[in-house]
Amino acid sequence: MSFPFVKGHGTHNDFVVLPDLSGKIHGDLDPEVVARVCDRHAGIGADGVLRVMRGGADAEWFMDYRNADGSKAEMCGNGIRVFARYLAATRLVDPAEPLLVDTRAGVRSVTFCDDDEISVVMGVPVVGANVKVTVEGRSYDAVRVDIGNPHAVVGVDSLDEVGSLLEAPTLSAEDFPDGANVEFLCRRHTGEIAMRVHERGVGETLSCGTGACAAVVASVVADEEPTPAGRGTGADEADGGGQGTRPSRPVVRVVDVPGGTLEVTWDADDRLHLKGPAVLVAEGVWVG
Amino acid sequence: MSFPFVKGHGTHNDFVVLPDLSGKIHGDLDPEVVARVCDRHAGIGADGVLRVMRGGADAEWFMDYRNADGSKAEMCGNGIRVFARYLAATRLVDPAEPLLVDTRAGVRSVTFCDDDEISVVMGVPVVGANVKVTVEGRSYDAVRVDIGNPHAVVGVDSLDEVGSLLEAPTLSAEDFPDGANVEFLCRRHTGEIAMRVHERGVGETLSCGTGACAAVVASVVADEEPTPAGRGTGADEADGGGQGTRPSRPVVRVVDVPGGTLEVTWDADDRLHLKGPAVLVAEGVWVG
Repeated sequence: MSFPFVKGHGTHNDFVVLPDLSGKIHGDLDPEVVARVCDRHAGIGADGVLRVMRGGADAEWFMDYRNADGSKAEMCGNGIRVFARYLAATRLVDPAEPLLVDTRAGVRSVTFCDDDEISVVMGVPVVGANVKVTVEGRSYDAVRVDIGNPHAVVGVDSLDEVGSLLEAPTLSAEDFPDGANVEFLCRRHTGEIAMRVHERGVGETLSCGTGACAAVVASVVADEEPTPAGRGTGADEADGGGQGTRPSRPVVRVVDVPGGTLEVTWDADDRLHLKGPAVLVAEGVWVG
Repeated sequence: MSFPFVKGHGTHNDFVVLPDLSGKIHGDLDPEVVARVCDRHAGIGADGVLRVMRGGADAEWFMDYRNADGSKAEMCGNGIRVFARYLAATRLVDPAEPLLVDTRAGVRSVTFCDDDEISVVMGVPVVGANVKVTVEGRSYDAVRVDIGNPHAVVGVDSLDEVGSLLEAPTLSAEDFPDGANVEFLCRRHTGEIAMRVHERGVGETLSCGTGACAAVVASVVADEEPTPAGRGTGADEADGGGQGTRPSRPVVRVVDVPGGTLEVTWDADDRLHLKGPAVLVAEGVWVG
């Protein structure tokens, strides 16, 4: 079996890009092929595969995103930037033009920024109830945030206090029947967040795009509430800060993840924008 | 920076092959470039790099082997098979002919076998004193074996009993001032060994060629000694089996490692031969 590939990453979330504009190279894309390609020792190695396909009526491109085990997945905030970088690098799109990419979660609007980073409109978050997260026997208060996929976000004073995330944090099955990603966020100073993330079914990862969005939403929502002692004061959104009042939008937050830095904007229309780097490192042919 | 590469593995010990016959592409081969290429998220990802260079008077080829961190290394029993596979796949050598590859540990003789596996003469082992190995507070008797690099080999009844090898096993600094690889071997039945290995400076790995050799040496040496209750009887080498008497050579052992299966032969001239698979999975160009 032989087919072309490109490897790239966004904040160390890495992908094998499989160009397949006609859909004829890979057909239904056998999950076993994806798993073999993503195997970090016997394959190329990646967190997932991004198959590049022509889209339909709503968008010229379709991102067929697969997890490393071959299963289909909806959307990936880091992956779609690598997908877009591939399109621009191969001159399939003009980075000066607006780009629409269809995904299993719907059409996403992508912008190539002046600083060589790429920004993606991630949609409108849904803030849910307060929930509990347990790590190594210690219980944390968390807030539920849905960004297409479910998240539980925990505010901590230090990321070191969380300890090992080798084991999945425990969530109430009632709150999250299908599990959730869990983010631990620490406010470094105004406008900047440091974050660790445990992705359901994967483990602790170096970056999670929707997780960064969820963390920003949770931190902004916390700023809107009466401030418990020792937590953020919302002073940086002082105009209008207070219970039930939203900070003035857009809110822009830098999010440091273990694999790099992302920027999240929550705009006046309630939409989240995820901005970050996307780098291609190798191109070649699979011969395995 | 742009240069060609091939990726391959032997029993899931994986390598980026960098063709550089003239030595002009990579010059001194910057350790930082090696580390970037071997990074499993921001690079191609591998356990090490095998630079393919022309050799000198003693061998037509030289394997410039680097660890994933860019440091120079002597030899790699799995890597040299991938190196040889690359030479044959690109028709730089004729697999019907004997192949000599120079390494920092000296010239190695390589044979392409009829079953599509590759065999390498690994040299003569040196069996040392009995030593102690401690894992998670539990102490084990081990035997020291040197195969160019130092090993401490522990016989166990089950590989599961060893527990996690996330932390490096503790060795006496007096016995091993530079550390050692530690193998845990379990005899499955006559002629077959199952093994786990902790490589110094790396952690538990899926395969270790010199470790497989060391494990076979330790098991054969144990067969030569009076047998403690519950250990191997050496009955398969019955002629001459007994204290101080060597089993008749050659001795052939199948070694199951987590990443696959290797075969080790200890021949009548005291030399070890390591035989196993070598697979190329991708070829391309680094563009990072």
